Amino acid sequence: MTWTPDYPRALPARRPAGHQPRAPRWTLGLDAPTSLLTSDYLAVQCGDERAGAVAEFLAAARASHPAGDPDAPEAWELLSHTDETGAYNLVHLGYWRDATAHARWLRSAPLARWFHGLDAATAEHGAWHEVVQVPPERAETIYSDPRRAFGLAACDGTRMVSMTTNGYFGAARDRLPVSAIDPLEPAGPHRRRTPPVASQRRRLRAECGHHTAVIRSGQYWQPATGEQLADYEEVLRPKLMAGMDHLRRAADTAGTLSLRVLTSLDRESLRPLRETSVLGHFHSLAALEEWAAGHATHAAIYQHAIEKNRRYGPERTVVTWHEVFVLPRTAAFEYVNCHPGTGLLPYAPTVLAVLP
Amino acid sequence: MTWTPDYPRALPARRPAGHQPRAPRWTLGLDAPTSLLTSDYLAVQCGDERAGAVAEFLAAARASHPAGDPDAPEAWELLSHTDETGAYNLVHLGYWRDATAHARWLRSAPLARWFHGLDAATAEHGAWHEVVQVPPERAETIYSDPRRAFGLAACDGTRMVSMTTNGYFGAARDRLPVSAIDPLEPAGPHRRRTPPVASQRRRLRAECGHHTAVIRSGQYWQPATGEQLADYEEVLRPKLMAGMDHLRRAADTAGTLSLRVLTSLDRESLRPLRETSVLGHFHSLAALEEWAAGHATHAAIYQHAIEKNRRYGPERTVVTWHEVFVLPRTAAFEYVNCHPGTGLLPYAPTVLAVLP
Repeated sequence: MTWTPDYPRALPARRPAGHQPRAPRWTLGLDAPTSLLTSDYLAVQCGDERAGAVAEFLAAARASHPAGDPDAPEAWELLSHTDETGAYNLVHLGYWRDATAHARWLRSAPLARWFHGLDAATAEHGAWHEVVQVPPERAETIYSDPRRAFGLAACDGTRMVSMTTNGYFGAARDRLPVSAIDPLEPAGPHRRRTPPVASQRRRLRAECGHHTAVIRSGQYWQPATGEQLADYEEVLRPKLMAGMDHLRRAADTAGTLSLRVLTSLDRESLRPLRETSVLGHFHSLAALEEWAAGHATHAAIYQHAIEKNRRYGPERTVVTWHEVFVLPRTAAFEYVNCHPGTGLLPYAPTVLAVLP
Repeated sequence: MTWTPDYPRALPARRPAGHQPRAPRWTLGLDAPTSLLTSDYLAVQCGDERAGAVAEFLAAARASHPAGDPDAPEAWELLSHTDETGAYNLVHLGYWRDATAHARWLRSAPLARWFHGLDAATAEHGAWHEVVQVPPERAETIYSDPRRAFGLAACDGTRMVSMTTNGYFGAARDRLPVSAIDPLEPAGPHRRRTPPVASQRRRLRAECGHHTAVIRSGQYWQPATGEQLADYEEVLRPKLMAGMDHLRRAADTAGTLSLRVLTSLDRESLRPLRETSVLGHFHSLAALEEWAAGHATHAAIYQHAIEKNRRYGPERTVVTWHEVFVLPRTAAFEYVNCHPGTGLLPYAPTVLAVLP
């Protein structure tokens, strides 16, 4: 038995009558009722991975997971991202099912203290911290393979549950329990800040709009060899990256707030793994859906993945998955001496300066 | 049938075995599943009620409820509060069951536009805006009489439901559905900001700590006459006000963040009604409970109310009620050119300046 919030439908599901998905898929089950799910992205932003700040960040990150600490994240990862300006971003990503443990960790963990102790006026690097926190009714997940736990699914007290709410446009929305009672509409327009906010040498918060949608969409091909490895790296990955380039280039019309391709790293050696994830923030769930439903780049990815799944079945060694969260208005995105293209800064309806 | 979120208990209830309450009480029932409940307090702060800003505020408030507007609050009130500095605060309080309607109202309503259009540097008055928004699992209510709809209960799609989760210490916690799975602990200490934040001529946000508890506790004696009127005004009210004075004076140790006694006003004439409510913000639910369980001022109020209820039964013309909300960390409290004792400014763990 797993626990999922469940509402009698006031709004119709998108599932077509009689739909049977062509591919088996799994979703996250929670073993017990849970009030808030938290993903916490905390990063250093600098010239390259040899910067002194990276060593400091890593030391603090590694010291933030003492054995037996009940407040430490239940799952954590290190990821890197080279952004459009060429800046190197090293990201600590933690997941919690207990929001109070998360709040305490933010007060006590060396990594959080490092972040809060930075002086934006004198720091020789940037840093950012984005907290995504929602009740389970505002979260949905999908995995193409149940044999490995990705993202939030790496927390204790979770499991992979087979499902059939997949394989049609609108399935992601249908998987969000709150979509039964709420159309998840934004309240205002998607509008780029002009001029860009002066973010260097400052500690800023960006407040997102009502019903901002956040996706972490993952690709894992560590076990792939031969034909499947070549197919992923030479065919599917370029299609995926073309889609991401489109979402970034057309951000003003596509409703993209931020899009980062993250490379998963070995936590000890920092060696890049054959694992990536796209962290995307969108003006609304509908913006994300419109791309998925209408744009050629998504169709190419989708068709290719379906074909390969059919061909290889359980021998498929490329796994795709995602987790989506729909946020209420929140000012939980903080940027210290970052460039103005970082995270939600370019599109945030409200930007605030943290007072000392 | 009403809808209430409900979790299998992971934490024990506080209800003593075999408890039967001495007095009948009611709680709010929702006719349909609801994702977020919103109370929105928006106020002008000035020398007295004759200030020009009050007229502007009132005109904007009255223009913010056009007939048939689906985004306007489902229930609204005007209240006044003279604070410790002697400043007059006129408050528009709105309630919504639809967070998107609320978010849209904040973009379009004349009152919200008045607030957002204020220039903190030149305004001759202050203004503040506090949004309390939680899923129903983080809300609880109690009413001593079901015949009149107070606060959130004035929204459509709600009703009074008889209950027996009352009459013992811990009942308020037991009525919070999330308390079945979460002890609702704060993450950090209760600490006054020293020195006070320089809030004049600035537009600031105050971010509350994790699990801040907000109570609106109401007193209604409009229909009271004779003995019951005299008893309320001469005996019970002084006891209540003594309790409130204690919570304000001992704020540093009692965990009080803010405490305002609001007088309900006739929406047309602004004449004070025989109706008040105490709007209190506390560091934690436990801080609120400790006062209720342990302090003489609360015992005096509680015993007196129980006695009078038993004596008058359904003829009792003094009604008491409250609504409590336990918040996640949020920066949804904004202050424009207010004095530094306003709202959450004195105790907020983080204060931010809104950038133009």
